[in-house]
Amino acid sequence: MKQVVTVKRRALAANEERAERLRSRFAASNTLVVNLISSPGSGKTSLLEATVQALDSKLRCAVIEGDVATENDANRIRALGVPAHQILTSGACHLDARLVENGLAEGGFPEVDILFIENVGNLICPTSYDLGEDFKVVVLSVTEGDDKPVKYPAIFSRAEVAVISKSDLLAYVPFDLEAVKEQITSLNPSGEILVLSSLKGDGVDDWIGLLHARLEDKRRA
Amino acid sequence: MKQVVTVKRRALAANEERAERLRSRFAASNTLVVNLISSPGSGKTSLLEATVQALDSKLRCAVIEGDVATENDANRIRALGVPAHQILTSGACHLDARLVENGLAEGGFPEVDILFIENVGNLICPTSYDLGEDFKVVVLSVTEGDDKPVKYPAIFSRAEVAVISKSDLLAYVPFDLEAVKEQITSLNPSGEILVLSSLKGDGVDDWIGLLHARLEDKRRA
Repeated sequence: MKQVVTVKRRALAANEERAERLRSRFAASNTLVVNLISSPGSGKTSLLEATVQALDSKLRCAVIEGDVATENDANRIRALGVPAHQILTSGACHLDARLVENGLAEGGFPEVDILFIENVGNLICPTSYDLGEDFKVVVLSVTEGDDKPVKYPAIFSRAEVAVISKSDLLAYVPFDLEAVKEQITSLNPSGEILVLSSLKGDGVDDWIGLLHARLEDKRRA
Repeated sequence: MKQVVTVKRRALAANEERAERLRSRFAASNTLVVNLISSPGSGKTSLLEATVQALDSKLRCAVIEGDVATENDANRIRALGVPAHQILTSGACHLDARLVENGLAEGGFPEVDILFIENVGNLICPTSYDLGEDFKVVVLSVTEGDDKPVKYPAIFSRAEVAVISKSDLLAYVPFDLEAVKEQITSLNPSGEILVLSSLKGDGVDDWIGLLHARLEDKRRA
């Protein structure tokens, strides 16, 4: 067990170095990079579909999809005319900076304004791996229950933005929205919280506004 | 990376040994052991609540809860008069046989007919760790989308039982139930598939019937 911990610590240190290299590269191209993390089925890909449709080619976007298996998610994005590269982790439970470096090389993306990285569906493991992103977004769907932030505190502490998704289902599930917001705020007092439905469109404008604001901040910095 | 793989392989081999020790112990006490695996928020704890209520003290049950943080889930089970022991993994993304051995010692459980082990909410990492169980149950809620079995093939191949949960929400979400059943069957032709709603009670009888049948099979073996 001790050996596992030591090896993991070394892997994380190597990852940090690579992530910093990626961060410099994204800074040079003025690309805003967003790392999306959630449980399987919280609606990360649906949020990205709604996002690229709402942006309507006003910004140049690309997507890196991380999955254990299938090219399904990349195909959903490509169907909307946006370049997407699928990383298959062959069983691994998270993306790391090396996979993203390789994915960028293979993807052959043109220079873009926003690069979205959709991590493997997993609320735990991806949290520790910096991918050179500007910020992490945690997505929590209302159908997952209102105890999740306190049960998975690491990601809710580290994600600068929490998206509460599938708000159109609020009427049908036991989910105390105010309690969830309080949990998130107590874990991350400076974080932003958005409530939206990617399928119905409610709240998507605020998310788009946040992306524009973050991109402008980055360009001004 | 190679070193990580080697260390992981050694950890898995050590886990196998411990799991076999647990399996002998459970065989000696005629205890049926069920290892529940799903994404966060698929309804594992709600299914256990519905289960112990439906069993209504006809069988002696106990629950081991695995979580990254909080004693919430064990408390929900204890509130129904069933002994529960909470394992906190301090960040780790799955239970292993060592944690279950320690949990049993700390839990001080009386001899029971069925021991439920609710794994950490994660559809990937718990799959590889044998806990000495009789069988794994994967829980997939209809709100997670109908592409999940092919996207997370390892757990759907290895779980003898797939529970499709939150069936009361089928009317409100895009979810092709037949397509999901086909995916699961193609990954695991001999597996059983149950569709149920723990909150509304639909389909819970079939699940209880399955548990009784499996317990009888074990006692006859």
